[in-house]
Amino acid sequence: MSPVKVGILGLGTVGCGTLNVLRRNAHEIARRAGREIIVTHASARTLDKPRPCDTQSLRLTNQPMEVVNDPEVSIIVELIGGTSLARDLVLQAINDGKHVVTANKALIALHGNEIFNAAQQKGVMVAFEAAVAGGIPVIKAIREGLSGNSIQWLAGIINGTSNFILTEMRDKGRDFDSVLAEAQQLGYAEADPRFDVEGIDAAHKLTILASIAFGIPLQFDKVYIEGISNITAEDVSYATELGYRIKHLGIAKRTAEGVELRAHPTLIPYRRLLANVDGVMNGVLIHADAVGSTLYYGAGAGAEPTASAVVADLVDVVRTLTTDPENRVPHLAFQPDSISEIPILPIESVQTAYYLRMMALDRVGVLAQVATILGQCGISIEALIQKEPVGGADKVPVVMLTHSVQEAQLNQAISQIEALEGISGSVIRIRMDTLAG
Amino acid sequence: MSPVKVGILGLGTVGCGTLNVLRRNAHEIARRAGREIIVTHASARTLDKPRPCDTQSLRLTNQPMEVVNDPEVSIIVELIGGTSLARDLVLQAINDGKHVVTANKALIALHGNEIFNAAQQKGVMVAFEAAVAGGIPVIKAIREGLSGNSIQWLAGIINGTSNFILTEMRDKGRDFDSVLAEAQQLGYAEADPRFDVEGIDAAHKLTILASIAFGIPLQFDKVYIEGISNITAEDVSYATELGYRIKHLGIAKRTAEGVELRAHPTLIPYRRLLANVDGVMNGVLIHADAVGSTLYYGAGAGAEPTASAVVADLVDVVRTLTTDPENRVPHLAFQPDSISEIPILPIESVQTAYYLRMMALDRVGVLAQVATILGQCGISIEALIQKEPVGGADKVPVVMLTHSVQEAQLNQAISQIEALEGISGSVIRIRMDTLAG
Repeated sequence: MSPVKVGILGLGTVGCGTLNVLRRNAHEIARRAGREIIVTHASARTLDKPRPCDTQSLRLTNQPMEVVNDPEVSIIVELIGGTSLARDLVLQAINDGKHVVTANKALIALHGNEIFNAAQQKGVMVAFEAAVAGGIPVIKAIREGLSGNSIQWLAGIINGTSNFILTEMRDKGRDFDSVLAEAQQLGYAEADPRFDVEGIDAAHKLTILASIAFGIPLQFDKVYIEGISNITAEDVSYATELGYRIKHLGIAKRTAEGVELRAHPTLIPYRRLLANVDGVMNGVLIHADAVGSTLYYGAGAGAEPTASAVVADLVDVVRTLTTDPENRVPHLAFQPDSISEIPILPIESVQTAYYLRMMALDRVGVLAQVATILGQCGISIEALIQKEPVGGADKVPVVMLTHSVQEAQLNQAISQIEALEGISGSVIRIRMDTLAG
Repeated sequence: MSPVKVGILGLGTVGCGTLNVLRRNAHEIARRAGREIIVTHASARTLDKPRPCDTQSLRLTNQPMEVVNDPEVSIIVELIGGTSLARDLVLQAINDGKHVVTANKALIALHGNEIFNAAQQKGVMVAFEAAVAGGIPVIKAIREGLSGNSIQWLAGIINGTSNFILTEMRDKGRDFDSVLAEAQQLGYAEADPRFDVEGIDAAHKLTILASIAFGIPLQFDKVYIEGISNITAEDVSYATELGYRIKHLGIAKRTAEGVELRAHPTLIPYRRLLANVDGVMNGVLIHADAVGSTLYYGAGAGAEPTASAVVADLVDVVRTLTTDPENRVPHLAFQPDSISEIPILPIESVQTAYYLRMMALDRVGVLAQVATILGQCGISIEALIQKEPVGGADKVPVVMLTHSVQEAQLNQAISQIEALEGISGSVIRIRMDTLAG
């Protein structure tokens, strides 16, 4: 069969990685796909910049729409990022009857419903394995590998930057700011790190995972989002002392009342495999009714890991070029007419255990007052650490783990505790999850 | 679309699990597949036996060929196990133009080349996700998720029985025989446990994994196989002391000289995720050029985990019922005309590090003699433990870890060491792997 011609939008890290992987493994890829896949046309913002890939054999333009409109090209790989121009380009490609492969999580999380609807009508595929957890084929695992299951929950370390920072904080006892600065130097964090450390990137990915796991629309605006910038070296160390690790997790859970969608730091037992996914690595744990728990681990970012997912999508698309669109794997795992509107629960309705830390005056009776408030709010304590005052300090840190409770109730208890004369400052809370079946 | 009708051969644990999962999740599965999948006909050796699944709504026979020949049924699920009758049934189904889903690793490892060849000629699919690592979608991950990569090696804990035994031996300091007896009581090991504990089951699965990873034919007869029955509580304890775990691994590695295919106990560093895959769980670590290392973890056996993979295969097959066979995912990941005959290396050519244990007379000079022999054979020592003699014993255990060396050279060194007067009995050897990129 004749080669399939591909156009790439964006020749940054992942664009070059994709070119390099397609070239280096051309023979092996063709042995699998049954035909060659070649990039013939690409766009880049700056044309004469030195790049870690050879662009000599392809047409290069700084007008991405030229690539989209190239009649020779049958698959467009969108790697420019952002949600405005990328959306226009992808919708145009779909409109021209071209298939699309994208690594753009923000685009899918924010405009996926519109994009997949357009693709459905035009009978083209929009593949996005690279949008979640880089090179780990977790979209495929959920969408196809677990298709016999009713998925109950998933919890993923899906932001490498946050995981690197938390790992360093734990391994070296360092604080957030100093590790962030190092991560920026190493290129693991952007100059503006908010997207990563404030949990937005993880929330984009969680939006996608939840949709394909539960058969619900993409609804990024309903994700509860909390980043890691408030996690202190102290909390990391207390968590360790209690037998836990703090990880930034994207959690999606199906309950009788609706779906929980939340991205936030979470204490998890240190013996869990997910607790040992360290550094910039990603890991996604999925609990489903038939198979139980399965875990998928690997590099969540980087030129070639992401390219690995882009190329796998290209091979998938090539294989379905002649397939009746009705019989393809649906974009969001469930048939478009079967996607259901299960309510997404507000964070106040979420039921979970908590790690609490507060500064108490070193005085008789304060702890009893705290315990009374918790008891009145129906919150029972599972573990408690009270440290001796250091030096002449009049305040001591009190750390406790609660049993599972509704967040609304915990909020109530916390505001009462913070009003106590014996408690100084605010009560720090970090959610916990045992990740048990 | 009208429902797809399926026939099941064998209503044992997995057969009933498949029936139960298909029924319980019927709605969710149809929302994904776009049509219903129903079992209409099944065979079982004994018809009137009580079963953990409801068979009232289907036709039941003790003649599996009746199911195969049922013109209403378009997919046959083979779950009877064994390689003789199963082969006949599967080949007959293919010959009748029916698609096949099987969980039978022995069948695929031993007769896969013949079966896939027949399926190719008839334009039908034979899906076998359930044959390796139960519910973990690792076949799909390698075949489709990593299709852009050149896979370099893989190492898998793919026999739950062996992993359970080794985990118990380590956690509780018990010996092989007593844990095996417990595993048999718990139903984790068969009355005749040889298939599992002698590594044959793992070798079947490794044969399949290596074929789809490297694009080579299935060649079970070339796998080097060693089980766990010779692993002692002593070795488990020394390994722990040295910072390692002993796991039974299936290892496939591509080298400049050929492919290594070996299933044997292996020391791996305790910090690796794979070292923490415990109990009956399975885990497969895959190292590929673009993505780096990815790991897949989950239940490798059991009624519903295996059913999870069977049903995922059913959904895949249903989706390709109308696909041009040319464009389907090839059975063995690579197009049939692209499967290449890379030589499989004999174990003597394998290059690896080793754990060695021997009993030495507690006498000056013995250790020097051992060291001299190793040095002459070009083997350098990375770590060494020599224990004090216990009580009045005249012999002391000597444990060492070597750097990487060719097995042939090690064999030579071992026979010279065993010939020393100061060494009593044979030298125990266990291969090691750092599982590093």
